[in-house]
Amino acid sequence: MTLLNENYLNLQGSYLFAEVARRTAAFKAAHPDAQVISLGIGDVSQPLVPAVVQALKKACDEMGRAETFRGYGPYEGYDFLRSAIAKHDYQARGMDIMAEEIFVSDGAKSDVANFQELFSSDARIALQDPVYPVYLDTNVMAGRSGVFSDGQFKRIVYLPCTAENNFKPALPAKPVDLIYLCSPNNPTGSVLTREDLEKWVNWALAHKAVILFDSAYEAFIRQPDLPHSIFEIAGARKCAVEFRSFSKTAGFTGTRCAYCVVPKELQIYDKAGNAHGVHDLWLRRQSTKFNGVPYIVQRGAEAVFSSEGQAQTRVVIDHYLANAKVILSSAKAAGLQAYGGENAPYVWLKTPKGCTSWEFFDMMLNKLQVVGTPGSGFGKAGEGYFRLTAFNTPQLTQAAADRLATLK
Amino acid sequence: MTLLNENYLNLQGSYLFAEVARRTAAFKAAHPDAQVISLGIGDVSQPLVPAVVQALKKACDEMGRAETFRGYGPYEGYDFLRSAIAKHDYQARGMDIMAEEIFVSDGAKSDVANFQELFSSDARIALQDPVYPVYLDTNVMAGRSGVFSDGQFKRIVYLPCTAENNFKPALPAKPVDLIYLCSPNNPTGSVLTREDLEKWVNWALAHKAVILFDSAYEAFIRQPDLPHSIFEIAGARKCAVEFRSFSKTAGFTGTRCAYCVVPKELQIYDKAGNAHGVHDLWLRRQSTKFNGVPYIVQRGAEAVFSSEGQAQTRVVIDHYLANAKVILSSAKAAGLQAYGGENAPYVWLKTPKGCTSWEFFDMMLNKLQVVGTPGSGFGKAGEGYFRLTAFNTPQLTQAAADRLATLK
Repeated sequence: MTLLNENYLNLQGSYLFAEVARRTAAFKAAHPDAQVISLGIGDVSQPLVPAVVQALKKACDEMGRAETFRGYGPYEGYDFLRSAIAKHDYQARGMDIMAEEIFVSDGAKSDVANFQELFSSDARIALQDPVYPVYLDTNVMAGRSGVFSDGQFKRIVYLPCTAENNFKPALPAKPVDLIYLCSPNNPTGSVLTREDLEKWVNWALAHKAVILFDSAYEAFIRQPDLPHSIFEIAGARKCAVEFRSFSKTAGFTGTRCAYCVVPKELQIYDKAGNAHGVHDLWLRRQSTKFNGVPYIVQRGAEAVFSSEGQAQTRVVIDHYLANAKVILSSAKAAGLQAYGGENAPYVWLKTPKGCTSWEFFDMMLNKLQVVGTPGSGFGKAGEGYFRLTAFNTPQLTQAAADRLATLK
Repeated sequence: MTLLNENYLNLQGSYLFAEVARRTAAFKAAHPDAQVISLGIGDVSQPLVPAVVQALKKACDEMGRAETFRGYGPYEGYDFLRSAIAKHDYQARGMDIMAEEIFVSDGAKSDVANFQELFSSDARIALQDPVYPVYLDTNVMAGRSGVFSDGQFKRIVYLPCTAENNFKPALPAKPVDLIYLCSPNNPTGSVLTREDLEKWVNWALAHKAVILFDSAYEAFIRQPDLPHSIFEIAGARKCAVEFRSFSKTAGFTGTRCAYCVVPKELQIYDKAGNAHGVHDLWLRRQSTKFNGVPYIVQRGAEAVFSSEGQAQTRVVIDHYLANAKVILSSAKAAGLQAYGGENAPYVWLKTPKGCTSWEFFDMMLNKLQVVGTPGSGFGKAGEGYFRLTAFNTPQLTQAAADRLATLK
């Protein structure tokens, strides 16, 4: 009799987006003429930019000719893309990241989900709360969570991020091995400063912990003094891995390309105390379980770094940031406390006093026909908050924001 | 101090292709004028067919326009592709596989590597020997292998496939939970008959075991009575998962698209004896750790099923099968025992008496300047065998075969 991985039974149902969809569908059925606008989903609306489409099509043609056809590519990605990433995203900003430290993949979600495989099954995990659910669920599946009770897993160290601490996680009160940090943050839209990151890097170095740093939204940072990468911090090469994506930077949610940076100095240990390079372990993992990203897609991603690609994708991100600004000012006009949205595509609202995240969801849907995401779906500390995203079209975002402003 | 997953330390170095490359490079350095031909690697040489390239480019254009742009797609793949697969590969052959039982992915390697996550960490594994290394390595990483000693892992049940048993694995002598079967086989090129598969399905049903059936090479089957799918066998819906790929069928090794079929009836158990659907478990795994295959690539894969796509890809496979025939007849002309190569892209040679796989490799390289793969690299029972692949161009394959025929 074949037994299952019983850790799967410990997963808490992912009801958040399903429940959002259910309530929205019920409302639409009852009000067929209502113009419901969704600012709920974290998916982009703008098409791929011309420089990317051109590169994709050129690569399709190459794949159709014997002289230029490509079969299996390198597990870690083609040199042309790894070099472009290292040069533009790191070396041009003064960071000593080499092309061979870049691993190209099909998504930051895959990387962030798979990376935990390298670590001991009893590694202690610290997570921001509220949090992107993938960090948590993949550790539950791996058996690191402990039992679920009173809304939390017993072995997970939660780091609450609320208005009270300006959405900045405090250092863990007890020892942990792996720390997931996301900045600009999903869902709160807050961004960690250089000083914040220095604090974390120093703690990780002192405790021989590893930081898994998710900077999928770094392209939304416009304030010059905010760090785009953890590798802007001295010492991070010895304690951190960074995850990035073309999904939000260049509209690749349906095109699938991302990368992670694994510095050669980063080491973890066996029980006997011997050090092992994380770079080598990740290469072993990727070469055994993954066969690389489509050549066509890698050429499309490379085009993001051309001067046309840079200019064109910046215009798209500026549109999304303009959307965020519109949402933010309408929320403030409505008398709501609103956070994020300045260097991030997410606006995080405090619900009015005494109103839960789901009650606010229902009010927004019924009164304004605007769909958002209840903060409680991202963790216990998200209760009393509500997420709106800047990824819809300018027209619909403006229409939703106009409705929001009438709330007062 | 962060500890690693010590199962990784139990992996045996994947020296096979690295050692092949090292010896080949050394030979070339010593003989710069030699015309070395590789029949070693399992990668395709022919470009994508015109129907696929056209569909890819059309999808690129769609991604560049707001009206037709696609963001995140369904985790399981788009309906247009799942339906095309179910219809052409299963229903048209009389199998009752539904579109919702198809999960589209970036590679059969990824699927075959990830599927083991659903099962208990002490599940007992049976593997054909010789074997595609991914089945073994991923179970080593998950801690199911036991210690390595005398060339084998203690907890793995090896099923030797040699000329003595016509490369047909015998049923396990002891209980196992998961059985990996590959037909047409990599590396031996042998194909399991309907009777062979019936024997396995009946055994799995009787023992409540699960068969992980890899039919990545089914498109190479030309003999009409050989099964293309395990779902041609009654009862398989209750005991099997099937993995397939566009890699060898349509030259997608660098384009990345595959799928697995998980029947709704397939169940596994928790320790309390409750049944759980594998389909639901796999959906949970994929939705948590994967974000789907590029829309562009799924449109390219769909085009494989158009009438032009079917005709064009068949021509390419016929070329490879003609290569296999050429290799097979030259090997026989040279007095070698040769297997496979008739409904598979692999020819499996028995090395001359007393000659190890690596000795034969060296002889082929030095005497003929032809590179193949030592059978011992695929497992203990592969010692004394040698793999040649049919994926090179017709010209180079003919040249290599001509050299092989001179061996006698």
